[in-house]
Amino acid sequence: MAQSGSPRYKVVVCRNLGPDVMPLLESRHELELVIWPEDRACNRKWLLENIPGATGVIVMLTDKVDSELLDKAGPSLRTVSTMSVGYEHIDLKAVSKRGLKIGYTPDVLTDAVADLSVMLALMAGRNGGIGYSLVLNGGWPNFSWAPFGLCGPQLSTTVLSPTRKVGFIGFGRISQATLSRLVPFGITHCLYASNPSSPPNLQHDAELQSKYNLKAVLKVDLDELARESDVLIVLAPGGPSTYHVVNEDFLRKMKKTSVLVNTSRGTLVDSDALAKALREGWIWGAGLDVVEGEPNVPKDHPLVKEPKCVIVPHIASATLETRKHMATHAAQNLIAAILGGDMPAQVDLSAFSLIPPC
Amino acid sequence: MAQSGSPRYKVVVCRNLGPDVMPLLESRHELELVIWPEDRACNRKWLLENIPGATGVIVMLTDKVDSELLDKAGPSLRTVSTMSVGYEHIDLKAVSKRGLKIGYTPDVLTDAVADLSVMLALMAGRNGGIGYSLVLNGGWPNFSWAPFGLCGPQLSTTVLSPTRKVGFIGFGRISQATLSRLVPFGITHCLYASNPSSPPNLQHDAELQSKYNLKAVLKVDLDELARESDVLIVLAPGGPSTYHVVNEDFLRKMKKTSVLVNTSRGTLVDSDALAKALREGWIWGAGLDVVEGEPNVPKDHPLVKEPKCVIVPHIASATLETRKHMATHAAQNLIAAILGGDMPAQVDLSAFSLIPPC
Repeated sequence: MAQSGSPRYKVVVCRNLGPDVMPLLESRHELELVIWPEDRACNRKWLLENIPGATGVIVMLTDKVDSELLDKAGPSLRTVSTMSVGYEHIDLKAVSKRGLKIGYTPDVLTDAVADLSVMLALMAGRNGGIGYSLVLNGGWPNFSWAPFGLCGPQLSTTVLSPTRKVGFIGFGRISQATLSRLVPFGITHCLYASNPSSPPNLQHDAELQSKYNLKAVLKVDLDELARESDVLIVLAPGGPSTYHVVNEDFLRKMKKTSVLVNTSRGTLVDSDALAKALREGWIWGAGLDVVEGEPNVPKDHPLVKEPKCVIVPHIASATLETRKHMATHAAQNLIAAILGGDMPAQVDLSAFSLIPPC
Repeated sequence: MAQSGSPRYKVVVCRNLGPDVMPLLESRHELELVIWPEDRACNRKWLLENIPGATGVIVMLTDKVDSELLDKAGPSLRTVSTMSVGYEHIDLKAVSKRGLKIGYTPDVLTDAVADLSVMLALMAGRNGGIGYSLVLNGGWPNFSWAPFGLCGPQLSTTVLSPTRKVGFIGFGRISQATLSRLVPFGITHCLYASNPSSPPNLQHDAELQSKYNLKAVLKVDLDELARESDVLIVLAPGGPSTYHVVNEDFLRKMKKTSVLVNTSRGTLVDSDALAKALREGWIWGAGLDVVEGEPNVPKDHPLVKEPKCVIVPHIASATLETRKHMATHAAQNLIAAILGGDMPAQVDLSAFSLIPPC
């Protein structure tokens, strides 16, 4: 502990949080900030060298919080604040054992992810990737217009095809925010599959159906979801229980004109099966913000090679507003955990302390 | 005229309309069909050789209908049916002089164009082009996550930025269909500029405001439109009166975080000014389905070179459903004009016969 009048609590900040948010920390003179100075992921060696004696640390998804780091920090450490909604990088058992408070940043990214889900659904259907590449590579002057050239399935209903079913794997906050955005496209049915052990919330579904004037909001099994969905959006947590839920068997059941969107975690979709499905035309297209094994998704990855697969590099929460909000919450979580007050969002370790670290 | 029992009316079809629509024509035994056999734009020489004696012709935007063609056709010609909403390729004065009926295919493409407008608004804001290119070119493995990396302005409102104004140049059917799709993103204000000589339809605007629970639906001047819009969507007709309405002066007034979308005609936007605006950061990004001078938009075009400009090759109506609908209307227009009955959509030549051909 530092002496009176000088900074009292050492805080390691693994990434500059930007000119809007850093002043929240800098204005707290009780904190002695040690900030990773570069504009790239924090170096592990630097972190291990600087963590001893810290009371708090602000980390990103790229910073592993494990026993080694916690041991180096020593008994002064009270809190780990991550600027992320996920905490796969934090060894929950190890932090729980030490009685640390873990701050994270859920909820604030709901709208940003829903927006990107709509973008990817449109791009996957409307040849957004192929059309963009064609112009970028100088192909437009020789691109001959054809009545059905670069056509794709229409997201909006039409007189000739008045039914559109959107399916969700996982039907939490982000799925429902995405659904609300798809309603004015003329979506008629919303189907979803979620935790098989949870019964459907019939009253909530009926309220949504009425609110959006849909023909159905219905929890269904994966078979029906695959067969019926025109647009299928994967928005469920990762982990063993959802591993490769979209596999060859699932994809073979989908409509030839359907599109698949994944804005949750790469592990839910079997990449090889999806590449085969696109190559052989089982489905129309795919829009992915996440891919299993990312960021190791090189140019010759089977999905990158599929023209009808649109991939963006995990940017679903990447808006100026949302990231600023996440950074603000990360700073506030840390300040509250050290100086007192309510943390905007704290991981409930009582529920997670029994899960073995992975 | 052919004899009884054999085809009576020669019809030249400049493009195969696909297996769903060609039977509409083939089943009419009164028609003798002469069909351009290749899967590319109809050859002018072939068209001139085959048009003599025709009663009708089905054309695409790529087929110029001028005095030369009409003279070659001769007095038997009664109708020109174009599979397009625009008719810039048809010399209206020349066809009007000959008393021909012109069929076209408006309205049916409203939803497809509105869908693409939303896609481009999202791509322009959310680095849809840059992110997609990065993965396609093998850059993901070396793409270092950063708190504000690949961030863009969020289309949806947030707690920290609760106001979103969408602006339209032109406020017809497609603009209003686009507005309806943006409402659940949290749009709060709708501003529009349209024909200066038309007074605003205050009652209609008030109805839209109430229907969508907006803070305003308001006709404004171009200055205010440029200054206030977070998303500006150009959806007005081409021609001299709208030429370069989005010019340097306009772009300089826009917000640095705003995005521009053009899904109407390339001539409305000054390409050089827009490239400068993107290069110098006057606006955030642009999404274009049309570019002045298209399809001659090569790889070194100033807009193609701008990373924050997403361009697709005029595919706003390119959905399977809409193009089939357009092809169906083109066939029905021709059949009705020759064999009797109502044409689904006929160009009102009384309004256009005084416009000099361009």
